[in-house]
Amino acid sequence: MRNHLRAGLPVAALLAAAALSPASAAGESKGRAWTLEDILLVPEVTDIALSRDKRFAIYSVEAADSTAGRPRVALRLVDVTARTQRTLLTADAVKLLRPIPGTDDWSGLMDLGEGLQLYRIMASGAVEPLLVNVDTVPVGRADLSLAIGGGTVPHRVGVLAYDWAPDGQWLWYALLKPVPNARHIRFDEEVRPLQARRRSSVEAEIDYYLRGPDGRSDKVMTRPSSDRMALHAAGNILWHGDEIQFRIETPGSSAGGTYEVRAWNRVTGNMRTLADEHDLQTLWILRGPRGGTLGTTETGDRLELAETFADGRRYSYGHFGFTIGDLRSAGITVNAKLHRAVLGTRSLGNPRYGLAVIDKRGVLEIRHDASLTRCGFDAALTVGICVEEGMSRPPSLVQVDIAKGSVTRLVSVSPRHDEIAPLVARPHIWRNRDGYRAAGYVVLPRNYRAGTRYPAIVVTHGGDADDRFSEIGNQWNYPVQLFAERGYIVLLVNDPWPQQSDELMAAYNAWIRGSGPPDPETLQRLLWINGVRSFEDAVLDLSREGLVDPGRVGIAGYSRGSQLVNVAVTQSKLFRAASSGDGGFLEPAGYLYSAASYDPVYGGGPLSDHIDAYRKFAPSLNAAKVCTPVLQQVASASPPQIELYDALRAAMVPTQISYYPGASAASDETHIFHIPSNRMLAMRENIAWFDFWLRGIGDGDAPFPGRLGQWEQMAARAQPCPPPVTP
Amino acid sequence: MRNHLRAGLPVAALLAAAALSPASAAGESKGRAWTLEDILLVPEVTDIALSRDKRFAIYSVEAADSTAGRPRVALRLVDVTARTQRTLLTADAVKLLRPIPGTDDWSGLMDLGEGLQLYRIMASGAVEPLLVNVDTVPVGRADLSLAIGGGTVPHRVGVLAYDWAPDGQWLWYALLKPVPNARHIRFDEEVRPLQARRRSSVEAEIDYYLRGPDGRSDKVMTRPSSDRMALHAAGNILWHGDEIQFRIETPGSSAGGTYEVRAWNRVTGNMRTLADEHDLQTLWILRGPRGGTLGTTETGDRLELAETFADGRRYSYGHFGFTIGDLRSAGITVNAKLHRAVLGTRSLGNPRYGLAVIDKRGVLEIRHDASLTRCGFDAALTVGICVEEGMSRPPSLVQVDIAKGSVTRLVSVSPRHDEIAPLVARPHIWRNRDGYRAAGYVVLPRNYRAGTRYPAIVVTHGGDADDRFSEIGNQWNYPVQLFAERGYIVLLVNDPWPQQSDELMAAYNAWIRGSGPPDPETLQRLLWINGVRSFEDAVLDLSREGLVDPGRVGIAGYSRGSQLVNVAVTQSKLFRAASSGDGGFLEPAGYLYSAASYDPVYGGGPLSDHIDAYRKFAPSLNAAKVCTPVLQQVASASPPQIELYDALRAAMVPTQISYYPGASAASDETHIFHIPSNRMLAMRENIAWFDFWLRGIGDGDAPFPGRLGQWEQMAARAQPCPPPVTP
Repeated sequence: MRNHLRAGLPVAALLAAAALSPASAAGESKGRAWTLEDILLVPEVTDIALSRDKRFAIYSVEAADSTAGRPRVALRLVDVTARTQRTLLTADAVKLLRPIPGTDDWSGLMDLGEGLQLYRIMASGAVEPLLVNVDTVPVGRADLSLAIGGGTVPHRVGVLAYDWAPDGQWLWYALLKPVPNARHIRFDEEVRPLQARRRSSVEAEIDYYLRGPDGRSDKVMTRPSSDRMALHAAGNILWHGDEIQFRIETPGSSAGGTYEVRAWNRVTGNMRTLADEHDLQTLWILRGPRGGTLGTTETGDRLELAETFADGRRYSYGHFGFTIGDLRSAGITVNAKLHRAVLGTRSLGNPRYGLAVIDKRGVLEIRHDASLTRCGFDAALTVGICVEEGMSRPPSLVQVDIAKGSVTRLVSVSPRHDEIAPLVARPHIWRNRDGYRAAGYVVLPRNYRAGTRYPAIVVTHGGDADDRFSEIGNQWNYPVQLFAERGYIVLLVNDPWPQQSDELMAAYNAWIRGSGPPDPETLQRLLWINGVRSFEDAVLDLSREGLVDPGRVGIAGYSRGSQLVNVAVTQSKLFRAASSGDGGFLEPAGYLYSAASYDPVYGGGPLSDHIDAYRKFAPSLNAAKVCTPVLQQVASASPPQIELYDALRAAMVPTQISYYPGASAASDETHIFHIPSNRMLAMRENIAWFDFWLRGIGDGDAPFPGRLGQWEQMAARAQPCPPPVTP
Repeated sequence: MRNHLRAGLPVAALLAAAALSPASAAGESKGRAWTLEDILLVPEVTDIALSRDKRFAIYSVEAADSTAGRPRVALRLVDVTARTQRTLLTADAVKLLRPIPGTDDWSGLMDLGEGLQLYRIMASGAVEPLLVNVDTVPVGRADLSLAIGGGTVPHRVGVLAYDWAPDGQWLWYALLKPVPNARHIRFDEEVRPLQARRRSSVEAEIDYYLRGPDGRSDKVMTRPSSDRMALHAAGNILWHGDEIQFRIETPGSSAGGTYEVRAWNRVTGNMRTLADEHDLQTLWILRGPRGGTLGTTETGDRLELAETFADGRRYSYGHFGFTIGDLRSAGITVNAKLHRAVLGTRSLGNPRYGLAVIDKRGVLEIRHDASLTRCGFDAALTVGICVEEGMSRPPSLVQVDIAKGSVTRLVSVSPRHDEIAPLVARPHIWRNRDGYRAAGYVVLPRNYRAGTRYPAIVVTHGGDADDRFSEIGNQWNYPVQLFAERGYIVLLVNDPWPQQSDELMAAYNAWIRGSGPPDPETLQRLLWINGVRSFEDAVLDLSREGLVDPGRVGIAGYSRGSQLVNVAVTQSKLFRAASSGDGGFLEPAGYLYSAASYDPVYGGGPLSDHIDAYRKFAPSLNAAKVCTPVLQQVASASPPQIELYDALRAAMVPTQISYYPGASAASDETHIFHIPSNRMLAMRENIAWFDFWLRGIGDGDAPFPGRLGQWEQMAARAQPCPPPVTP
């Protein structure tokens, strides 16, 4: 069943059909309601590896651990034949699970208290160190750590990444190596990064090594930590005869990055450059069966999947309704000898994750009624053990027969979530007034009654409203399921997806690249106003159909979503409450932190002649237009977040900024909150916020009851939004 | 000899007289030249205390210690009768030396490796702890420390301050107490300070205690660390019968601060508020012999010294040519029983530090031909042991007979500096084209020959060009004495001093207060352009008189001085090279850090309608007008510093920003550099910079020879300044 071409069908028609659909029928009368703890404890399977004999698989599953005050990862062993599983161990982190070729064991990077190191894992549950680098480097947004992005839970890294040669005799690995603090005087360009410093940091380099059958390691190369490819994808390599191919990021003028594909000969020690690349869309090296680079091109509802070669030739595999290389998909697994690969796919429209087998003969899509998001395969690519999940389907492990395309359930990943009666969440595609299509879901209140108008909340985060289960990357601290349990209609709405038009694609590319065309005003319209119009039109659709009370509509989004929320409140009068999560991009004060991302949006910095562009579009400079109460929940309280708060406050718009601290003063909460107590409080704060502004409930489960009085006062002073246009 | 009314006399006349003056005559043919190490090792006497029997004094003297990589403090004992001294110990810090009343011992706060604690110090050299608070708090610009200003060398504090009752039976003390990290969610106003965070920090409170004769301590009060009075002046109290009077800072809307004078009764435990105060000019409580508050009022060349009382009455002591309460002066020492106090004074014009004895009969000024900057007195205020120093006179300890006003030399503080042949440094006052007078010194090249025109460097830092020896607070990393040894004329020029006119005083007060009147444009003119004109006119005077080559003039200043330097390069074409030290104020990006100080200068923030005021005046927004090469040496690389660098770079102005790191990645270099290696390199960098741009020397003692090529390239691309107007 494909959902992504439903644009134009009235939602009511879909809802009428809902009673007949298997998903809702199955859960309608059975099971219990969602609790906040259920949302907190939604598990995420991060990796899977199948054993050589295909009898066992191991997988890592991450979930909040309130006692530990952080997420913890369970490593579980699945008996594929018996369809049973047991937990081998729990760790702070587990990454890159792989079968060790030529053995029945696996390897994996695990943090068992000594930082991330490489271990051998046996089906017995025994674990032994394979490679330990005691000189670990602390990473994450913490004091004296290597800053590697706000999303990383602070931890220590010894071994950064690795991969086995297909024969199991050679081991490629990357170590993170501390650069001793040389206390050097810095000049000019070297000083600039310090201006945005929010914590102390350390320096580190990445060393690439190859260990041969004789146990000797050769150092291949040292990369600076500014090479994001080295930092995040040092194990993404290809074994090609005596050569190991990998990609490095080189210093370049393009904001999208410039890269080289390198090949290192393990016999001669020679290095050669295979290709120059830029503005990459994926961390993976997508090598096709013909030796070229796989990718999808063109725009539209079906994209051309093609292999391109160094000499410019192309080979087309035909047109398909998916993209590849998406980090949320099952990735790419290659058997070079068989000239075959299994690709994780992501369908267009209402995105679902699937698989496609590609060989010299062509492409075989494996279709399924839920997403397959993570997989481990046997070497011959005949069998995969995958995570199956869906918007209303808790994750389980399934066995995929690659040849037949059949999917058989093995074990549940989370019995706790199997107990919950699924909510009705209908995929939908809305076409907005400008003709752009946005995909998403309508989540109905638990006991939805036709004919009743419900308050509604739009939740948005780029393209993450897809067929995955209660995805934190989509819903963040917005407890979508609890909203539905409490009588809200929740619209999970994506931005209009870029592949639907050349114009949109060009705008996204300009933003990534750091320069137009198109011009700033067009970029603003296509990448932000376009989304806001999609949300408005989606709400008005549901209002016309009698589902939604247009006078009680809220909007919530974090990160990319917070940009849309902040633009929505300045450009629309529809929303009566907003929650904007850990954002700040688009505000003038953010220019300091990511000038290259601002330039295509505004033409330059805010203190240049481009100030007028900021005045027209930056949310904080348009605070006087806002009638929507705005809550900001933030992880590190950056200047643009305060800038918006101050501007709204000055304009008498009800607003609050809530800062959620890190585990200690020495570290920050992460962009996607990782501290269970913070997550619980932030979710409850959102419930209280929307209950207060949309439903006038001031005595609910407010986590900070003292704030209610403030909200009352702000409400009394505020300029309310005009009454909604009745459909 | 008073220098401050010399305005209008040609410098040449002064110089003609120079050969006859004792200072230069004494050193002319004897002694050696200055070295960089001499500047590095200039000592600063931080405190002095005399023993009860007046036979001994102890004093603390701070100097760079290259081995320790930081300043260290020697505690020395002086035998007053024998005029000998010996070092008792060295420590990381020594503060608040006091005789213990009723004993022959002293007390002092010292950091002997356990943080700042209170010790008893005996003339034998023995030291024993009096009060130890093991729960110390790290302070300074370092990770997980209490940020108490960029000038504090990172250290740990147990006991923050103390004072003995005159009878020695009662001990007032303040402890810095860590506030456990409660990991609390912050809201709104509590979030705002985080936006300017550059490092992690901890929270602390200040507890005030009074310990009685029975050894029992009562807690008087707890103050937050946001109370700057508590943090910096917790020991500045008055003993008044059973009451202890002290000042607290209260949260208030005035940028200048709002304060209360409190009185705590040690018998009843009652607290009362004696007075509300605001916009204080000093941390000291200047209680006069009549029980009122001492202060100088009016403007002009002689100020009225008066005592004001709670009921509004005033008592005038007459008019004098000095200010009191200056933290650089010898302070205030009170004997309440005798209704007598000795005040440290600072004269107007070319400032020199002196003493004034004040009692009910009136005021007696003690005049001397050098400054008396730090003193310790006996209880009856008959004798003081003071530091004597001058612009060309290394510090020594002297005995001051208060009744006679006589000064007798005791011991040298720094024999090393006594060996140096003093440079000729003539005080002077310049009246600029607008009629405002600025004071300063002309330091002549070592072998100055009349009739030769020399390259010149103006060094400026507010009002610190005064009669102290090679003062780091004035000359920072600008090696004034080495410049003179190398053939530069150095002009040490202050801002026009505020007390000379009501208009100037009002402008300074508006800046401190955070709001006008006067209007922003007037403030800019009086507080910045006024200074720049003083510098220009001083240089042109010397040029007219044939001393200075007007085509080879540089300017240097840090902090307040850097503001003047940055305005100078945008408003004047006179300067051929500039060195701007750890500044940034006036740049738009600095608004975030000190909005209240910006508001009176620009009217508001840079993204408001006040952007035009910034465009007219902010140095970075006027980079296109700059023809002067600008070096910035910075301690923490804040955004406004980078903003200026970027703007100058974009305008093709030769510029460099050099960042000097802290002792480790966990701490920063301080605003006035405290790391000896940084100071040496920064001084050498300044020599190389001015030698290159003013004299075309590119092969000198450059500490970073690799930079010379960059300077050549920048010079080749740059738009040079127009030729100077020949006098």
